[in-house]
Amino acid sequence: MNPLVTLTTDFGLADPYVAAMKGVIKSRCRSAEIVDLSHEIPPGSLLEGALFLAGAIPYFPDGTLHLAVVDPGVGTERTPIVAQVGNQAVVCPDNGLLTLASQILPFRGAYAITNPKFMRQEVSATFHGRDVFAAAAGTLAAGAAFNDAGPQLERINLLRVPPLKREGEHHLEGQVIHVDRFGNLITNIHRSELDITKELIVRVGTLSFSKFSRTYGDVPVEEPLVLIGSSNYIEIAVNQGNARDMLGLDRGATVEIVS
Amino acid sequence: MNPLVTLTTDFGLADPYVAAMKGVIKSRCRSAEIVDLSHEIPPGSLLEGALFLAGAIPYFPDGTLHLAVVDPGVGTERTPIVAQVGNQAVVCPDNGLLTLASQILPFRGAYAITNPKFMRQEVSATFHGRDVFAAAAGTLAAGAAFNDAGPQLERINLLRVPPLKREGEHHLEGQVIHVDRFGNLITNIHRSELDITKELIVRVGTLSFSKFSRTYGDVPVEEPLVLIGSSNYIEIAVNQGNARDMLGLDRGATVEIVS
Amino acid sequence: MNPLVTLTTDFGLADPYVAAMKGVIKSRCRSAEIVDLSHEIPPGSLLEGALFLAGAIPYFPDGTLHLAVVDPGVGTERTPIVAQVGNQAVVCPDNGLLTLASQILPFRGAYAITNPKFMRQEVSATFHGRDVFAAAAGTLAAGAAFNDAGPQLERINLLRVPPLKREGEHHLEGQVIHVDRFGNLITNIHRSELDITKELIVRVGTLSFSKFSRTYGDVPVEEPLVLIGSSNYIEIAVNQGNARDMLGLDRGATVEIVS
Repeated sequence: MNPLVTLTTDFGLADPYVAAMKGVIKSRCRSAEIVDLSHEIPPGSLLEGALFLAGAIPYFPDGTLHLAVVDPGVGTERTPIVAQVGNQAVVCPDNGLLTLASQILPFRGAYAITNPKFMRQEVSATFHGRDVFAAAAGTLAAGAAFNDAGPQLERINLLRVPPLKREGEHHLEGQVIHVDRFGNLITNIHRSELDITKELIVRVGTLSFSKFSRTYGDVPVEEPLVLIGSSNYIEIAVNQGNARDMLGLDRGATVEIVS
Repeated sequence: MNPLVTLTTDFGLADPYVAAMKGVIKSRCRSAEIVDLSHEIPPGSLLEGALFLAGAIPYFPDGTLHLAVVDPGVGTERTPIVAQVGNQAVVCPDNGLLTLASQILPFRGAYAITNPKFMRQEVSATFHGRDVFAAAAGTLAAGAAFNDAGPQLERINLLRVPPLKREGEHHLEGQVIHVDRFGNLITNIHRSELDITKELIVRVGTLSFSKFSRTYGDVPVEEPLVLIGSSNYIEIAVNQGNARDMLGLDRGATVEIVS
Repeated sequence: MNPLVTLTTDFGLADPYVAAMKGVIKSRCRSAEIVDLSHEIPPGSLLEGALFLAGAIPYFPDGTLHLAVVDPGVGTERTPIVAQVGNQAVVCPDNGLLTLASQILPFRGAYAITNPKFMRQEVSATFHGRDVFAAAAGTLAAGAAFNDAGPQLERINLLRVPPLKREGEHHLEGQVIHVDRFGNLITNIHRSELDITKELIVRVGTLSFSKFSRTYGDVPVEEPLVLIGSSNYIEIAVNQGNARDMLGLDRGATVEIVS
């Protein structure tokens, strides 16, 4: 089987940055099979990058190598790493991108990438995506051992994810942390935080829901609803409509649950 | 040869939806070669999805498996299917996405996807792209028989495409049904509907054309023209300009042909 | 090894144009490995296309075949070619797209594509991307010889790139020729044009810099800086900010260097 290498960046595709990275990977491992995940992470947004990876990596087969570059600190002291989550590996800067994926798949250790053989001969100060991360991914895809990359790390850096607030037993407060292409408002409240078989009120903006829908089509067209999304987080949506635009809500909006 | 699986969705690439689908396909068929066609079908637009597939599928080799997900009715009663068109196959919801492709390539039958082995173990109510369609495509790519997916269907659902109007022998009326990235206005009038060797007047908005150009450069820069587009539909364009913006015309604009 | 074919176009992905090209390539060479570089070159912009290719091609391995279609003159007299740069090849219109890549990698000759076997049987006047360029790329990927495409060309067409102006020994003037996704302003002044170890003043808009930074993080957050970018051109940026928006500068802005 050819090595499977996925790419996730905030580089967009209008500039030649991703193309150069693909060239570097293929130059180091001609048999690597490159699969684009996304290059549309909002520029520099580590939380959006972490959310994306948590929604993508768990579905890939054992042995997949993911290359993820959202790197606002390029050229400064953050460490390039290769980390093992489940039976997959991720090459990325040690800046918190794995915060959420490593809650879903067991974190199995990480190595700093310090071995110059894992890098291009000349390393620019502003494009480690090409000169360090793509080169390291190509080197690993070609068969190099993880522990040849550099010293093992005891821990990786994690982001401070917006926390849930609890007030007594019956009041939980979270927030909208992502709005998807369809305008669906995705919150940081996981289904495991509540017992949806009981009576609950979900409040967001001026809306109040007394039950969870199963899917969008459970309410009339253009009506709002709340449901458990496909990644098991509570989501506010509008059937065949854009909840962000129609409800006037966006990232950061507070969502209250009263039981 | 590795199985060739193409992807067409309205999911965009900013969210991890397409990435999760790719992971599911590769998890079921590690050797599948994934080729992205587009993830920019306008959200929920079945007619745009059908137009896209008709412009893409006919160029692929025999044996290609296409996965197409534009699915505004996700979680409701529409049926997931695998359909055979020409010597290729398409996994998609039975909601009309194949309306136009099946006019170009012979429709050779379809099967409902009901076999739980063709689905992920837990099927969410809102993301059948991952849990049903990608899983079915991966299963088929790995060698499962079409008729193992579920019962054969007698017919598939077709969209009502905007029809042409004829008034007598000399008057034909159609409309702009797609505007491409360059601003070219593509109509629903196929070249087979008229004899372009005869004298014709084409009217759209306040413009009137008495002849068809062969290509954009046949008229001066920034001048409008009418031609037979590369999919054999009548198209209004501006040489090195954006016809939508410069002519103030958009989807739905009426196009009259008088002979 | 499967033949590696990259794709660069200004077609975007909302229309089925790129999908049709991929189908044509795979129909002529089922084993071709297709890698997307970009489909977001600004429509018809040859200079942006040339810049993109110069930033991408040099990183690919020997033997790569690049297909590049930015073709405002489609259907008119420009020649489709296959050109050899370094040990790679590029199929494109002869309209200057290779101007910058052929300054980095040695230009090793080109052939006009005139052999009908390198084209689809019916060639439309408006979509040579599919009917000529993709067909030729597929034919070459399948093993056809370059010199079977058509007659050898003595030279290829080059763009007039905005030139640098020098006034005496101590004054150099260039301009911003590209703004990337992050808002970084990339100029046409190559590092080889100046001695950055000496004292220099860089002026752009109302700003004046007396030293080059090594990377973005060398200045405080939201402060502007000048550096040598990852392709060795002088670049004006803002640490963790968008230089275009924050400095009010765009393509065409003058950049002066006084030593």
